[in-house]
Amino acid sequence: MQQADTSGSVGIVSPKTLYSAKPVTLANGRVLPEVTLVYETYGTLNEHHSNAVLICHALSGNHHAAGYHHPDDTKPGWWDNYIGPGKPIDTNRFFVVCMNNIGGCDGSTGPTSINPETGKPYGPDFPMVRVRDWVSTQHLLMEALEIPSWAAVIGGSLGGMQAMRWCVDFPDKIRNCVVIASATKLTAQNIAFNEIARSAITSDPDFHDGRYLEHGTSPRNGLAIARMIGHVTYLSGTAMGMKFGRDLRSGTFEVGTDKQVEFQVESYLRYQGESFSGRFDANTYILMTKALDYFDLARDFNDDASKALAATNSHFLIVSFTSDWRFSPDRSKEIVDALVRANKSVSYAEVEADNGHDAFLISIERYQTLFAAYMNRITI
Amino acid sequence: MQQADTSGSVGIVSPKTLYSAKPVTLANGRVLPEVTLVYETYGTLNEHHSNAVLICHALSGNHHAAGYHHPDDTKPGWWDNYIGPGKPIDTNRFFVVCMNNIGGCDGSTGPTSINPETGKPYGPDFPMVRVRDWVSTQHLLMEALEIPSWAAVIGGSLGGMQAMRWCVDFPDKIRNCVVIASATKLTAQNIAFNEIARSAITSDPDFHDGRYLEHGTSPRNGLAIARMIGHVTYLSGTAMGMKFGRDLRSGTFEVGTDKQVEFQVESYLRYQGESFSGRFDANTYILMTKALDYFDLARDFNDDASKALAATNSHFLIVSFTSDWRFSPDRSKEIVDALVRANKSVSYAEVEADNGHDAFLISIERYQTLFAAYMNRITI
Repeated sequence: MQQADTSGSVGIVSPKTLYSAKPVTLANGRVLPEVTLVYETYGTLNEHHSNAVLICHALSGNHHAAGYHHPDDTKPGWWDNYIGPGKPIDTNRFFVVCMNNIGGCDGSTGPTSINPETGKPYGPDFPMVRVRDWVSTQHLLMEALEIPSWAAVIGGSLGGMQAMRWCVDFPDKIRNCVVIASATKLTAQNIAFNEIARSAITSDPDFHDGRYLEHGTSPRNGLAIARMIGHVTYLSGTAMGMKFGRDLRSGTFEVGTDKQVEFQVESYLRYQGESFSGRFDANTYILMTKALDYFDLARDFNDDASKALAATNSHFLIVSFTSDWRFSPDRSKEIVDALVRANKSVSYAEVEADNGHDAFLISIERYQTLFAAYMNRITI
Repeated sequence: MQQADTSGSVGIVSPKTLYSAKPVTLANGRVLPEVTLVYETYGTLNEHHSNAVLICHALSGNHHAAGYHHPDDTKPGWWDNYIGPGKPIDTNRFFVVCMNNIGGCDGSTGPTSINPETGKPYGPDFPMVRVRDWVSTQHLLMEALEIPSWAAVIGGSLGGMQAMRWCVDFPDKIRNCVVIASATKLTAQNIAFNEIARSAITSDPDFHDGRYLEHGTSPRNGLAIARMIGHVTYLSGTAMGMKFGRDLRSGTFEVGTDKQVEFQVESYLRYQGESFSGRFDANTYILMTKALDYFDLARDFNDDASKALAATNSHFLIVSFTSDWRFSPDRSKEIVDALVRANKSVSYAEVEADNGHDAFLISIERYQTLFAAYMNRITI
């Protein structure tokens, strides 16, 4: 059997749980009577509790950011390339925290949780959450762990939006903010892709208006289509070309035969869609994409992101990737411009990468180096 | 009632029909026992039959390229911006022919036609057709109309692939070839988008393995998703941003309210999807996207497009649009490079346009001017 390669890794880790019986009032006014927060930690909290780093996950991520759950796991957590001993987010130095956001489907209170008021899963009745709700529940965990301020809050994509929101909502509790492949708000094109994904889910007859769990089913086809759209658009055309080109999986183009041709890229995509739909919750997918669409850092600040960032006290690292067309370098530059106008301390790097939006998850030398350099300069 | 504005237009037109009882053998070896070809013509065939121009339609197009069918039509044919008196494809000078391709769903033999062997609609049993089959059936129409050679064959996108195939298959019957926003073959990313669209259709329970007509239904949801994907990817991010931004259709972002927000771009997209799914056939959509995926001009020529084009005798005009990311200027430059290496006469223009792939359908001054100039130089 293939064993987990735990060298250079945080090794075997186990999720932890924080249960809070205190009701949580969300941005939209709805109240969760209780919340369960599932999280992982890597490294050791120092004496002064000054070395804690919060990792915020994106759309399809969860609390399992690094290491392995079982010795026979073949895949580590989703950001194992960047979290571990000697890695940019160095667990020899930092105490790293990653939490499954509420509304998620990996243990924290979300649509698959039992609604204590009905005894049934929340399903579509789970309230829409905003990025600020994630930040406020991450803050609950922060208090429970007795962390007075984060050495850094770090996130890619939707995670980067949470990191920025931290700076605005808790300016004195975050010393560094690392925003990777993100934006102050989505473009119309991004909202459009999210809406197509949601339409694929909601038009699947197994969706049952979101009450699929009560029907003992799941809108797997719709969720697979949603994931396929995400997968293609989070990669670059160049990366897909290099990986698949026009290689065939079956059939031939011989004239005079009726054998249907299948390209490698087609079966790969279908596999990605099917495997995702087996592990992810459709209501969570809808909720997370809505939170993405709704996020607008400058909305409460007269549409001026520099005003939103005016009262923040963090140092900032902003990173973008050349081939990322869903969160293009131009979106990161808007963040940088707003920070400069607000007279804040900001480092920016546009990293040459072929992998599109997914580049933020991948080992890329320049990205590794500059990320490590920034993290090493943080005082703890 | 709003009336058709027929000024500068070919006016009211009616489709014509060519029925051929002669069996047609397709590239894959399958035989259509008979074919019906629906087409329109605009302008007048001159004495020497030397002024005929063939327009090849793309994925969702048909034979109705210009003018109006009824005085109360509010929309003209799909390329009315470019075909008509005084327009680039000037009907005062040219006799313009546009045919619904076989496999289509607007009258020519296709999946919705009755299979004479079974008395039922072909549905999914309709053979997969290749671009070369469209060219060979367009050639049937050419013979019926007694046209010895086309002054020009013109097409955008999938239509451009047909125009190139004309040059290869009938080098002495085409004097000018106009290829707009096209490619010698699709990229992996393009194939991937087509596969997602097909998956949306085939996973719709109303698809019934393609026999939805026999079940008195249609996979409308799947077809709507397919169209939404096409719509977003055929536009540019810039164009969507200018058209919709983050404008809301309903709801508010007020903190403390539970009213769901809908962006304008979402309802617009859904409307586009629904209206398309009411008029288009799902099996045709699958067949047309497969033809797109399969097309590879150089496949029979050792993957060398310049060898494919070596025996052609046309002059070429190649046009691309800066913001078209599904058929990017780089794809057009590959055509131009192949033509230059084959020592052919080629004009190339990369037109500045914000509208993405859809630019080829839209009135854009520089595109109008250069297209008209090229067409005016054609000897008839």
